[in-house]
Amino acid sequence: MLQPERIRAVIFDTFGTVVDWRSSIAAEARSSALSIGVTGLDGEAFADAWRAGYHPKMKEVRNGTRPWTANDVLHRERLDEILAEFGLTNLDDAARFQLNRAWHRLTPWPDSVTGISRLKSRFIVSTFSNGSLELLVNMAKNAGLPWDAILCSDVFRAFKPAGECYLGAIELLGGDPTAVLLCAAHNYDLSRGRKFGMQTAYVDRPLESGPDKQIDLKAEQDWDIIASSIEEVADRLGV
Amino acid sequence: MLQPERIRAVIFDTFGTVVDWRSSIAAEARSSALSIGVTGLDGEAFADAWRAGYHPKMKEVRNGTRPWTANDVLHRERLDEILAEFGLTNLDDAARFQLNRAWHRLTPWPDSVTGISRLKSRFIVSTFSNGSLELLVNMAKNAGLPWDAILCSDVFRAFKPAGECYLGAIELLGGDPTAVLLCAAHNYDLSRGRKFGMQTAYVDRPLESGPDKQIDLKAEQDWDIIASSIEEVADRLGV
Repeated sequence: MLQPERIRAVIFDTFGTVVDWRSSIAAEARSSALSIGVTGLDGEAFADAWRAGYHPKMKEVRNGTRPWTANDVLHRERLDEILAEFGLTNLDDAARFQLNRAWHRLTPWPDSVTGISRLKSRFIVSTFSNGSLELLVNMAKNAGLPWDAILCSDVFRAFKPAGECYLGAIELLGGDPTAVLLCAAHNYDLSRGRKFGMQTAYVDRPLESGPDKQIDLKAEQDWDIIASSIEEVADRLGV
Repeated sequence: MLQPERIRAVIFDTFGTVVDWRSSIAAEARSSALSIGVTGLDGEAFADAWRAGYHPKMKEVRNGTRPWTANDVLHRERLDEILAEFGLTNLDDAARFQLNRAWHRLTPWPDSVTGISRLKSRFIVSTFSNGSLELLVNMAKNAGLPWDAILCSDVFRAFKPAGECYLGAIELLGGDPTAVLLCAAHNYDLSRGRKFGMQTAYVDRPLESGPDKQIDLKAEQDWDIIASSIEEVADRLGV
């Protein structure tokens, strides 16, 4: 049950919850392709293929199969892996660097900036993301996301759902897990947050993975808030 | 020699460089004293006594004499130590908690908010402080300091001048030390930053420790920028 009077900080998953990675990456990939004369790229398929390598690579870090590796490096590895499939091997190193930085320029969902700004008027608002600090700061400056703090993978040197992330965020925010409301479009993330004592807000993002979205089609537990936008989370908290 | 074209982030010492801890603490201490009927408290002497315990306690953590201990805990320990000397032992636990939180409400120097806002238009601007994340976020929200990120002791689990702080900030900001300009009113801090490859900006704060200030009366090395305000740092960087 929601305990609004206990909340001091609202922390957000970003990729999918705050920003629309799929449309942003699709558009930038199409633009990169055109720069080397490749027309008709299926940008959405490219974005899906890129994203599909992300969780397996983070899992290698979580398992200890590979040492701590920053998010930008994982993104770049995966980019290099998929270029041949899409006929883009002619992209040179500078162009690949620029395309990889597309993750620093993702576009927010229409309710994100207004919703987070409203929540900021009463609460600490922070990222809680597997992105890197530099990526998230660049994204915020580019998109006008008014974070009070950037909590993310390279601060914790761990990727969600590793426990270090949840425990680390709780400690940095003063030590009381119930004072933290985790806002995410992903049930696995909220499930871990709840396990560590956080309050939970599910935000439905039906378009996150395109029309063939397979997971997170709905709230799978009785999350403390279930909403269709970050504005609605703000409504529920009366800000 | 300053290399302005390399700079991507400007990071700031906060206590003394961005905020005027002495006047702020003096005023809050006088107010606490009055609340229990103690008149005529020398607020500045109280602030100096409080601050005097800070570096020795951080040093115990740096030496490994005591385990990692957050900034708010060190502040509170020192507060409890000095109350008797100032006739304030009647402050109850809630009042002591409130007074300890005065460090979360420190007042910026007149040029801080405008100077940092100007720098934010081109660079990443962040704290680089021995304060805690919660303290620095509360300070920013209270004073309108527009940080892009909060880099601080409990992110690194170390206090400046420990090398982990400087190396950690460089890594989180992308790995290139010359892309980081450290801005501080304290020569020891800039000396460490330079050792780790950062660019350096000295900001003169003659009033930081009152009329009897003993150290940091002037720039003691040829820092890349030597300025009398954060606005002047912005001037030098053309923003």
